[in-house]
Amino acid sequence: MTDVVVAVDAMGGDRAPEEIAAGALAAATESGAGVLLIGQEEAVRPLLPADLPAGFEFVHASEVVGMHDDPAVGVRTKKDSSLVRCAEAVRDGRAAAMVSAGNTGAAMGAALLRMGRIKGVARPAVAVPIPVPGSGPTVLLDAGATVDCRPEWLVQFARLGAEYARVRHGIEAPRVGLLSNGEEAGKGDELRKAAHPLMAALPGFVGNVEGRDVMTDAVDVVVTDGFTGNVLLKGFEGALRMMVNLVFGALGATEEAEKASEVIMPGLLAAAADLDPDGTGGAMLLGVDGVCVISHGSSSARAIVNAVRVAADAVTAGIVDRMKESVRDAS
Amino acid sequence: MTDVVVAVDAMGGDRAPEEIAAGALAAATESGAGVLLIGQEEAVRPLLPADLPAGFEFVHASEVVGMHDDPAVGVRTKKDSSLVRCAEAVRDGRAAAMVSAGNTGAAMGAALLRMGRIKGVARPAVAVPIPVPGSGPTVLLDAGATVDCRPEWLVQFARLGAEYARVRHGIEAPRVGLLSNGEEAGKGDELRKAAHPLMAALPGFVGNVEGRDVMTDAVDVVVTDGFTGNVLLKGFEGALRMMVNLVFGALGATEEAEKASEVIMPGLLAAAADLDPDGTGGAMLLGVDGVCVISHGSSSARAIVNAVRVAADAVTAGIVDRMKESVRDAS
Repeated sequence: MTDVVVAVDAMGGDRAPEEIAAGALAAATESGAGVLLIGQEEAVRPLLPADLPAGFEFVHASEVVGMHDDPAVGVRTKKDSSLVRCAEAVRDGRAAAMVSAGNTGAAMGAALLRMGRIKGVARPAVAVPIPVPGSGPTVLLDAGATVDCRPEWLVQFARLGAEYARVRHGIEAPRVGLLSNGEEAGKGDELRKAAHPLMAALPGFVGNVEGRDVMTDAVDVVVTDGFTGNVLLKGFEGALRMMVNLVFGALGATEEAEKASEVIMPGLLAAAADLDPDGTGGAMLLGVDGVCVISHGSSSARAIVNAVRVAADAVTAGIVDRMKESVRDAS
Repeated sequence: MTDVVVAVDAMGGDRAPEEIAAGALAAATESGAGVLLIGQEEAVRPLLPADLPAGFEFVHASEVVGMHDDPAVGVRTKKDSSLVRCAEAVRDGRAAAMVSAGNTGAAMGAALLRMGRIKGVARPAVAVPIPVPGSGPTVLLDAGATVDCRPEWLVQFARLGAEYARVRHGIEAPRVGLLSNGEEAGKGDELRKAAHPLMAALPGFVGNVEGRDVMTDAVDVVVTDGFTGNVLLKGFEGALRMMVNLVFGALGATEEAEKASEVIMPGLLAAAADLDPDGTGGAMLLGVDGVCVISHGSSSARAIVNAVRVAADAVTAGIVDRMKESVRDAS
């Protein structure tokens, strides 16, 4: 049992509050972290047992920032929303980290508003672990926080991403690539061409990498702007969904195939386990002065347990202080 | 048998000239199009039979633009390269279309240099059919021709792409989407935010689409800049390769699984046939004053046959005139 308390937004996500509350309860007993669940009393309280587990606390917040709320407006006007209260809990030291499966833009807005940025960081970035079956994940950032980027911001993302890969995935000397439309140094749009020479001095910089390299063991951290990163991340999602449908369609196409697939299915599911987004622990917002884990929109209870674990581990590893140092060293 | 002659670059591609020559020969007999194969005499002639098929002609060109040549320099200095000679053949009316599996940037450079742009088109775009198993492909453009784009160029890409979807895939009223990081109209970076209102007036415009929509039947034409399009295209490639390895790994993991997979394999391969890049006929460079098909780098003979067929069909359908009209109507 650690003393790390993680604030969990009970109202964020497609399966909120049921799955979030279930995950928060499980996390309090399984993960070793304390949990501060924040949400609407009337919606959440009925989901909780009369006897709350040790290390679990529930706090009422009257408002909800929805998936279709404008993120900036939502966090500014809904001051008593579960999301804003989570970020506030981190700012005030009541929690050491926050987890939300809600609106990514709003989570970023709340974190920026209440926790603020790390001094010297111009813009935050969302780091997402992209699964690579058979080896550790590749960290892709920015996956959507900062869509219009300056070259020097990409350099900061590279520093933050490398630190994240060290702390989160235990990669001592991460290989960092700049996502581009070709491997040669001269390849890229204006942003990439300007960023490449600035990144050349970074430890572990391997030069340009392409979309096809992300899901391989060729690189540990892939840096891009939030627009391109988001498009690529969702492209992966779509391609995997298509392939899963295709494979399962073929396995169930005939009675004979269905019978044969019984033999194959266990191995296939085991191999595909790495791809389950509920198992990754979610994305992390880097560059803010606190730990903020953003779990995917359809998070199950298990996804929340993993997100709480990842958040607590990041706190224990001192990830924010390490990022502060990494940025300070650079300036 | 039509009168359409397609110029084929014998020297472009990882498997040139063997597979290209074999494909060109097969195309002349199978596709109904005439073929003008251009390449180095000493490398290509030994691959050809003494009696050339009807409608097949070979022309010597002394130089080769390689995969690692700078595209702009390559096409400007190697005036007697197979690639430049192919584009010249189209300009001079000796061929009606060209096919190359070589350096995409160089193919674009040669086409621009020798064929020129369609009047009114600011920049060319590469259109790639992205396979969607169970329905027709989605046309993604630009996949790499123009990496830094202005908003009005994206509007032109949309017009060109819609015409391409009509002619090439027989979609009467294509649904056109703007690739962005969210579906809402306000989502996107500066380029997308500026392009969205300009595209709103286009027939068939469905608004923003996301990376996950490309491999679905939700949209027929997806418009983006050449940087993002190239990253996404190669991301798809990487994700599919990863999944194929994963599935085949599981199918061959144990003797039992291997045996069961014999039953499943035919259905799986049939379902996956849509994903074979050799079957798509390649990408097409839009906005130039001629038909230019760019086949993928590792094209087999079969890929070349399909590319020649697609090129000849595009000529027969009058694709360039239709694009000229589409652009003229807009101005």
